[in-house]
Amino acid sequence: MTHCPACERLRAPAADPLFIAELRQSIAMLHEHQAYPGWCVLFVKDHAEHLHELDPQVRADLMLDVADAAAALNRAFAPRRINYECLGNQLAHIHWHVIPRYQPPLDPDPRSVVWVRDGAQLHCGSTQAERLQAIRALRAAGLVGQA
Amino acid sequence: MTHCPACERLRAPAADPLFIAELRQSIAMLHEHQAYPGWCVLFVKDHAEHLHELDPQVRADLMLDVADAAAALNRAFAPRRINYECLGNQLAHIHWHVIPRYQPPLDPDPRSVVWVRDGAQLHCGSTQAERLQAIRALRAAGLVGQA
Repeated sequence: MTHCPACERLRAPAADPLFIAELRQSIAMLHEHQAYPGWCVLFVKDHAEHLHELDPQVRADLMLDVADAAAALNRAFAPRRINYECLGNQLAHIHWHVIPRYQPPLDPDPRSVVWVRDGAQLHCGSTQAERLQAIRALRAAGLVGQA
Repeated sequence: MTHCPACERLRAPAADPLFIAELRQSIAMLHEHQAYPGWCVLFVKDHAEHLHELDPQVRADLMLDVADAAAALNRAFAPRRINYECLGNQLAHIHWHVIPRYQPPLDPDPRSVVWVRDGAQLHCGSTQAERLQAIRALRAAGLVGQA
């Protein structure tokens, strides 16, 4: 296997400042971009590149993790809707983006995917205190370990 | 309920020229944009707007449908990878995009989501004969009714 930045990051997940919880088959992290408050990313624990190649039971449990993240996000942040994206275009380790969408002006283009905004807009400069507050809100809303 | 274009379309799904198959909880259609050959969309059969509000068993079966579509897509078109997106930003009826990604030049920007291309590029003008060929290829690769 070539070097995988996600596997590197998952070696000591709880030490990551964006760590939220260890779930059934994934590690939930807050996304570094908080232009959409509560945006989470779930990384599958064991390295795998293609969702359709996962063991069906692992995939089913991973999707339960995604559903739990969405439910917590909904309780904690009451977004207008939630976008679910498993892409792998830039990072070849299965991960799910669970992205809350809001009304303008917070969410300036609710009819488009978040990726149409340029990186500087996505990286809105949330502080570590704000990120920690979001992590705590998601945990309080039920996004906690399944072990 | 306000008028839903997806429900309208699903009234007689088999009559739709893009119809592929009726699955467990969804109707699989070829996407009208075939700039990424084999791009499918799975519409949940019974109107629902938010994935996290679906009955867990319905959601699990829907995800099996998505996995089946991806497996067939992989067998029929051998893409480099597959993007999975459930957005609802423009159509408030749960639907999953299962989008095959290829190497350039067919897929000119494999590091980005397909939506960064403008509509004219996405709507590459595939013919009805080409679309029918893709539908047949997906069915031959196993994307057939579960009933």
